[in-house]
Amino acid sequence: MAVPKPTRVRSNGKFSDKERAAVYRAIFERRDVREHFVSDPIPDEVLEKILRAAHHAGSVGFMQPWNFIVVREPSTKRAVKALFHKANGKAAAKYKGEKATLYRRLKLEGIEEAPISLCVTCNRQRGGRHVLGRSTVRDTDLYSTCCAIQNLWLAARAEGVGVGWVSILDHEALKRVLGIPRPVKVVAYLCLGYVSEFSPHPDLERAGWRARLPLEQLVYRERWGRNK
Amino acid sequence: MAVPKPTRVRSNGKFSDKERAAVYRAIFERRDVREHFVSDPIPDEVLEKILRAAHHAGSVGFMQPWNFIVVREPSTKRAVKALFHKANGKAAAKYKGEKATLYRRLKLEGIEEAPISLCVTCNRQRGGRHVLGRSTVRDTDLYSTCCAIQNLWLAARAEGVGVGWVSILDHEALKRVLGIPRPVKVVAYLCLGYVSEFSPHPDLERAGWRARLPLEQLVYRERWGRNK
Repeated sequence: MAVPKPTRVRSNGKFSDKERAAVYRAIFERRDVREHFVSDPIPDEVLEKILRAAHHAGSVGFMQPWNFIVVREPSTKRAVKALFHKANGKAAAKYKGEKATLYRRLKLEGIEEAPISLCVTCNRQRGGRHVLGRSTVRDTDLYSTCCAIQNLWLAARAEGVGVGWVSILDHEALKRVLGIPRPVKVVAYLCLGYVSEFSPHPDLERAGWRARLPLEQLVYRERWGRNK
Repeated sequence: MAVPKPTRVRSNGKFSDKERAAVYRAIFERRDVREHFVSDPIPDEVLEKILRAAHHAGSVGFMQPWNFIVVREPSTKRAVKALFHKANGKAAAKYKGEKATLYRRLKLEGIEEAPISLCVTCNRQRGGRHVLGRSTVRDTDLYSTCCAIQNLWLAARAEGVGVGWVSILDHEALKRVLGIPRPVKVVAYLCLGYVSEFSPHPDLERAGWRARLPLEQLVYRERWGRNK
């Protein structure tokens, strides 16, 4: 399939019912993947499509503050895995009893199984001192980078590529491993690979760690706390 | 169109070429919209679909830290518009010469034109003291909320609904307007409405404010700064 030209807009701009359903399908079937990775490599053109999807997120002041570091070397993944073990040891110690047992049973990363690790960063100095729209809320550059990550995640799902976000890592240590300079912030360390299956439900929901909240409880009308 | 059940996964999990193209279409044709809003109301069921899309983003430790305040009252929008004017006056003063002239000519919000304003927040205390995966990087709850916003943005595009993110607002003042309690952080104030058209290019690119960066410059191999 050819990637549609990013700049082309259909005449009426409307999505057909089938197109709309496909967008919802990607949204509802996207998973945070830690297992079921298979070893098939991701072709360069597929990776490029996924990264181009990320790059087409909106960004504050059109800052495009992101970079993507594609890691394939086993030695680098091994170093990152060691960082995970260190951070996860500390995290696990916060739980007691049954919750601690369950925590230790959960698979929380797929760093060495997934063929590609992708570090997504935010260069906080890109675009100079005055980035349009960023003077009031400084962290909007980080927010933009997260929007890019969600684009990437959905494009990957459509390509059959699973993505897992590994948040249990000391980012300062990770920056040393990847040679990331001072003004650049790590936003995410992602594991990418084709998978044998996507789970029908989020892993933490299936494991009974936490339930999905009813949407109605999260929506207010006019003011905080007003449900009707 | 019926919303696909969030939990259903097709047998083989694969997207057809057409489904994949629809996902990319939403990603490439999504715009940060400040004009072309029309007054047609957004039906409740469409708004619910868009919010459900947001709610199905992944979140750190399945925390689902977001809330959505749907604002329709003109008096509230007027109060927020006043906050925008105040913040934007300060922001505009940072530019000199041609850039200042261009800045003042840009339309940076559609608060009163769009039928719905949506404030997206992050409750930093949801899920208790120890949220799985959040102990190392505390802001992952904010990052999750941004992922939810991108889901919302893409679902809205598929529905023909334009979304504009207004970042030039003092969030503490906004919290007072909407009665948002202390431990809850405002992440975004969005304007939603059907539009007469989606621009083929981002507004700031069209206005010559800033150009799109070549993707190749943003992708590194194995380590920061290595392009090959």
